[in-house]
Amino acid sequence: MALEQIFVSIVLLLALARLLGELFKRMNQPTLGGEVLAGVILGPTLLGIVHPSENLDLISSMAIFFIMLFIGLEMDIRQIRKSGKTAVIISVVSLVLPFLAAYGISTYFGIELLPALFMALLLSVTSVPVSAMILSQLGLLKSKLGTTVMSAAIVDDIITLIIFAFILQVHELGVADLSRIDYGALGISSLKMALFLVGIGSLALVVHKFNDWFPKKVEWFFAKARTREAIFGILIIAAITVSLLAELADLHFIIGTFFAGLIFSERLLGKREADKAYGIASGITFAFFAPLFFAILGMKFSGQSIADSIPYLILLIA
Amino acid sequence: MALEQIFVSIVLLLALARLLGELFKRMNQPTLGGEVLAGVILGPTLLGIVHPSENLDLISSMAIFFIMLFIGLEMDIRQIRKSGKTAVIISVVSLVLPFLAAYGISTYFGIELLPALFMALLLSVTSVPVSAMILSQLGLLKSKLGTTVMSAAIVDDIITLIIFAFILQVHELGVADLSRIDYGALGISSLKMALFLVGIGSLALVVHKFNDWFPKKVEWFFAKARTREAIFGILIIAAITVSLLAELADLHFIIGTFFAGLIFSERLLGKREADKAYGIASGITFAFFAPLFFAILGMKFSGQSIADSIPYLILLIA
Repeated sequence: MALEQIFVSIVLLLALARLLGELFKRMNQPTLGGEVLAGVILGPTLLGIVHPSENLDLISSMAIFFIMLFIGLEMDIRQIRKSGKTAVIISVVSLVLPFLAAYGISTYFGIELLPALFMALLLSVTSVPVSAMILSQLGLLKSKLGTTVMSAAIVDDIITLIIFAFILQVHELGVADLSRIDYGALGISSLKMALFLVGIGSLALVVHKFNDWFPKKVEWFFAKARTREAIFGILIIAAITVSLLAELADLHFIIGTFFAGLIFSERLLGKREADKAYGIASGITFAFFAPLFFAILGMKFSGQSIADSIPYLILLIA
Repeated sequence: MALEQIFVSIVLLLALARLLGELFKRMNQPTLGGEVLAGVILGPTLLGIVHPSENLDLISSMAIFFIMLFIGLEMDIRQIRKSGKTAVIISVVSLVLPFLAAYGISTYFGIELLPALFMALLLSVTSVPVSAMILSQLGLLKSKLGTTVMSAAIVDDIITLIIFAFILQVHELGVADLSRIDYGALGISSLKMALFLVGIGSLALVVHKFNDWFPKKVEWFFAKARTREAIFGILIIAAITVSLLAELADLHFIIGTFFAGLIFSERLLGKREADKAYGIASGITFAFFAPLFFAILGMKFSGQSIADSIPYLILLIA
């Protein structure tokens, strides 16, 4: 039966990912290196025992949700606000530099500007979940450095989405026809993003200001709940809802998940319940979803895709 | 994107399942009644907002794994051994009675014997996960009653699989040709089951006998683990492995999951780590997988299937 087959894939990926993750950690490397390697070994590139499938893609999506939720729960919103200014500067610089480079290279080598800008965009995008997990596994996520890097990655992600929408329009219309750019659509998209971010910001502010009031109310509410694990259950429902709202606002789903995790903090739930939610999220993330996610990622580094990317690598190095 | 669509389905099912589960609980009914109702309402039978899909089937399979793992972790192997004799008697009676009834009815009404036996088998099968969750939600799982019912359900499940293999062969060959039944294949199948059960039993016995030795060794082993959530991670890997072995032994996957949960008890892990594993399993099961599982189950009670089953219901009542 196909559904048992998926458990065979899961257990192989999980077992090798845990083994190699442990080995990497002992060599003072981030665990996820070993987890990705497990996927490369079991996947089509080497042994070909496990293959990409729709089922594994779904597990991957669920995994990234739980990873980002955990990262949000682990981080402290106050630290992020403190590192805000530095983060924005880092983010802008890390976006502007590749763009300037792209402009220079395209002029110098006579490459078309648009493909060069696309390349610049790709270079400047930081993978939020991967950075977050590396920071978390190095024990740096809660440090000043980690918080700044994460904040910069989030700001990056949002700015990149706006630029991407712009470049896409330019690409469709052609550079010659910039006057016909649909600034209305771009404006609406930016407005939606702004609305979402202001909404999340206000929510965070309210939780922050009334931080004596909330834990008591939350305690009172959940003391009345008769079903088991009501807090973590409602946390998951709220986090998926916020993630879908982010998606509606033309942002990435996982940006919403991260913000939801940030808001469900000690200040909202009280220390005892926040610790409990953190424990469950940590358990299911590091025991199941994170190793699977990175192993599935590694599985997709097929020999073919590595071969395909060689010309681009040469272009990059040149 | 299809993968965001699945999160829309998940959040709708989860939210309504939690709401109705809470309502049912307050009316002193098992939570899962409300959860199944949520699926009936959102599914094709009523609103038609959420539809059965391969993705939801996969989530269902993962859910049943975590549910049975949790049930195994929650139950106490010593209680089960105590209730063993009673459980076997209950199980045999609950299997023999429907068979006698089937024989009587088939003779009296002139129905063919084989379909009648099939019907008897269907009547005598107790759904292990559903019974377990009802007992758990009524707070009876750890009681003498609950333990006996669960043990009987497991024994039932195993005996039913053997009888089913037998009836299937009779069906293929025709009653007239009983001499050609492949007793060899049936014997091998029974032998595989016996081997698996003896293996699990020995493992349980070893853990039981050396119950001072194991927690210390386990503590020593995991104190050396450098990756996060190593215990729960290895618990999941071991549980999937045992489940697949059960499948190989012609038993049900979830019977293996249940036994794995039973063995990963306080006696193996020590109280602190067993409590932690229990907390994570409880959180992810009751906050996410169990409500989803029962809502997806309810979603499949389509109007058509209810209409289709009316003749059988009449047959049953007659």
